[in-house]
Amino acid sequence: MTSSKKDSKGKADGIAAYMRERGERARAAARAMARADTGTKNAALFSLANILIEESSAILAANAADLRDGRSAKLDEAMLDRLELNADRIAAMADGVRQVANLPDPVGELHDLKQRPSGIQVGRMRVPLGVIGIIYESRPNVTADAAALCLKSGNAAILRGGSEALRSNLAIGRCIERALTDAGLPRDAVQVLDITDRRTVSEMVAMPEYIDVVIPRGGKGLVAAVSESAKVPVIKHLDGICHVYIDGEADIDKAIAVAVNAKTQRYGTCNTMETLLVDKAIAARVLPELARIYAEAGVELRGCPATRQLISEARPATEEDWRTEYLAPILSIRIVDGIDAAIEHIETYGSHHTDAIVTENYSKVRRFLREVDSSSVMVNASTRFADGYEYGLGAEIGISTDKFHARGPVGLEGLTTMKWIVLGDGHVR
Amino acid sequence: MTSSKKDSKGKADGIAAYMRERGERARAAARAMARADTGTKNAALFSLANILIEESSAILAANAADLRDGRSAKLDEAMLDRLELNADRIAAMADGVRQVANLPDPVGELHDLKQRPSGIQVGRMRVPLGVIGIIYESRPNVTADAAALCLKSGNAAILRGGSEALRSNLAIGRCIERALTDAGLPRDAVQVLDITDRRTVSEMVAMPEYIDVVIPRGGKGLVAAVSESAKVPVIKHLDGICHVYIDGEADIDKAIAVAVNAKTQRYGTCNTMETLLVDKAIAARVLPELARIYAEAGVELRGCPATRQLISEARPATEEDWRTEYLAPILSIRIVDGIDAAIEHIETYGSHHTDAIVTENYSKVRRFLREVDSSSVMVNASTRFADGYEYGLGAEIGISTDKFHARGPVGLEGLTTMKWIVLGDGHVR
Repeated sequence: MTSSKKDSKGKADGIAAYMRERGERARAAARAMARADTGTKNAALFSLANILIEESSAILAANAADLRDGRSAKLDEAMLDRLELNADRIAAMADGVRQVANLPDPVGELHDLKQRPSGIQVGRMRVPLGVIGIIYESRPNVTADAAALCLKSGNAAILRGGSEALRSNLAIGRCIERALTDAGLPRDAVQVLDITDRRTVSEMVAMPEYIDVVIPRGGKGLVAAVSESAKVPVIKHLDGICHVYIDGEADIDKAIAVAVNAKTQRYGTCNTMETLLVDKAIAARVLPELARIYAEAGVELRGCPATRQLISEARPATEEDWRTEYLAPILSIRIVDGIDAAIEHIETYGSHHTDAIVTENYSKVRRFLREVDSSSVMVNASTRFADGYEYGLGAEIGISTDKFHARGPVGLEGLTTMKWIVLGDGHVR
Repeated sequence: MTSSKKDSKGKADGIAAYMRERGERARAAARAMARADTGTKNAALFSLANILIEESSAILAANAADLRDGRSAKLDEAMLDRLELNADRIAAMADGVRQVANLPDPVGELHDLKQRPSGIQVGRMRVPLGVIGIIYESRPNVTADAAALCLKSGNAAILRGGSEALRSNLAIGRCIERALTDAGLPRDAVQVLDITDRRTVSEMVAMPEYIDVVIPRGGKGLVAAVSESAKVPVIKHLDGICHVYIDGEADIDKAIAVAVNAKTQRYGTCNTMETLLVDKAIAARVLPELARIYAEAGVELRGCPATRQLISEARPATEEDWRTEYLAPILSIRIVDGIDAAIEHIETYGSHHTDAIVTENYSKVRRFLREVDSSSVMVNASTRFADGYEYGLGAEIGISTDKFHARGPVGLEGLTTMKWIVLGDGHVR
């Protein structure tokens, strides 16, 4: 073995040991967290909100150091913007934590307690998942946000943020630690990793004995890399290739309102429409007006041949366009022959994220709701509503594009599971 | 490359192609299954029950061939017994299928449709998971049973049974195919693999694009092997190291009834008690009587030193005993210092399957229910109740010892997930 290989192996072993030690501490803390009552957890959260404000100058100093290094490392402006904290952003973080404190506690809810013929009563109790690993990029606000959701749902958390935000994250982590210990909760209930070596991620997803689920929050590359080698369950969010289908029996005003909002309200979000499908029966009545509005908004249009006959300025859409999440002011448009062709297109090219139909026809609504296999299926509403706050979850830890466990926006409930409860009076089989 | 390596590689490629082709067909069938209405699915199930009876002689002939080969291969008696079919067992299979037909259809249920401040209505619809892979040992009844549950829950299924039961499984598979096509459902909705090479399993768990979840039904070795390399979610059932804790404030009669039933009602089941924990405050009052009853039933006792002072015939229990699922008439007994020590023992040595407390104390009930992190937690009831039928699920596809998605007995609901539904009237953000 060469010496460099030895070094690298030594480092890897060191990181493995570091992560296992963190995992053991998290597992121990998870038991205390599962027992913690709602009042104690809320006290820790309100205290955290206050500490974040009190410690603003320490957090901002740490953040300034991160930003300075980020600029030296020539990070792009978007990344620096996500990395940057200021008084307003810290206040928003504290507000977010207070909002989570004000949400109902899902832990301990007892569901459907029923009497069985044998005499026992059977029901289910909502309980924490245990230890949650969160892997995210250089956005320090995620540290407070994810910690709050894990804490409220009675879980322990290991947070591994991006290296560019390490000092900011650790400063926020110290606030979390203080809030936990002030409330009498174990300080290991939320651990912000102080090593950001890439192998912390590969170790984390390979420790099912310590980690019950990993949630990667970030771009598609990060999510794919985490999922690839995971030995633990992953709540993952991949593509958001969202469609609006304007049916032949749509109300024209609703169709235009929804199609415009779904594309133009924000371009970079996962629930933004990327492809507009239009029934050929109505295309000539909606597309010219939509093209005018999109042109005003500066949206580039790419269309199928039939679309280009109605919108001359549209560029030809390629097969690749139907599969692309633009996250930009670009829209592909396809004219289809009714709801069957629309559903077929969505199932073939979509990413099962969020898809909407605009129609007044009752039977088509029923079919679309049932047959479109996406985490959110909408009728006469903008795809932009696919969001934990809009759905009333209070906050979301992510949006799952998987089917297993949780689909779509994941709130506190997604960080819990149900165990069975049996109440008897000396009953035997 | 040697020629044998080439052959083996060629074979592996062949199996990969075979499994991918099966996966594609299942994925296509899953769409039709998700759309299928309850009446059609029930018609297929009732038809299957009839066809199984009609085709009894063909099934029994196939089974006789499997049994003949099994005897030549010197399979042990227990395995031959599981493999064997007869008229009664086919009738029981058909009854099981009819029972599934009579269960409520979970697909399409709409939950919690709520009005949001934005004006939209948001709710969740229960939908099938998609394609379910079932991997099981040589028990042909699982073929009909698993097919029925997957069909009723609107999923497509790929069934890979043990090689010793191949002919029996294929004969039952032909009945399923007929029932599906008679009802107008795609015949690929349930595919019984006609190759049982081990690589069918490794390919199946590596095709997340075609398989949404894999359920291994069988011994611990099978389950561990399947989970090890899985790239798809697995609903798995590992150990059942179940405890009964007799608290100092237990009712003596209930304690004895529960402790006897949990051990002796059946020895080989996962929900049988393996370790009895007894509060030192009550040990002298319950253990001698229990020892007498266990001795009569032929149960071997292994105890901690304090136990052996009360039960002289008990052998010493080792550290290993606390971690062992005997699945046999053997019981380990430990005297503990109250509920904290009992919970500590369960969390340290248990397998989070099923654990029970016997007590009359209200606060201890609350603590035990909340703090014991097992898929079933019971009060004054025998652990033997941990079962899909006893819980009112109608049938179970397995018992999950995981926390993610489903815990404990998994019925039709565990084969589904929820998607979000948004109803608007032209609403935009």
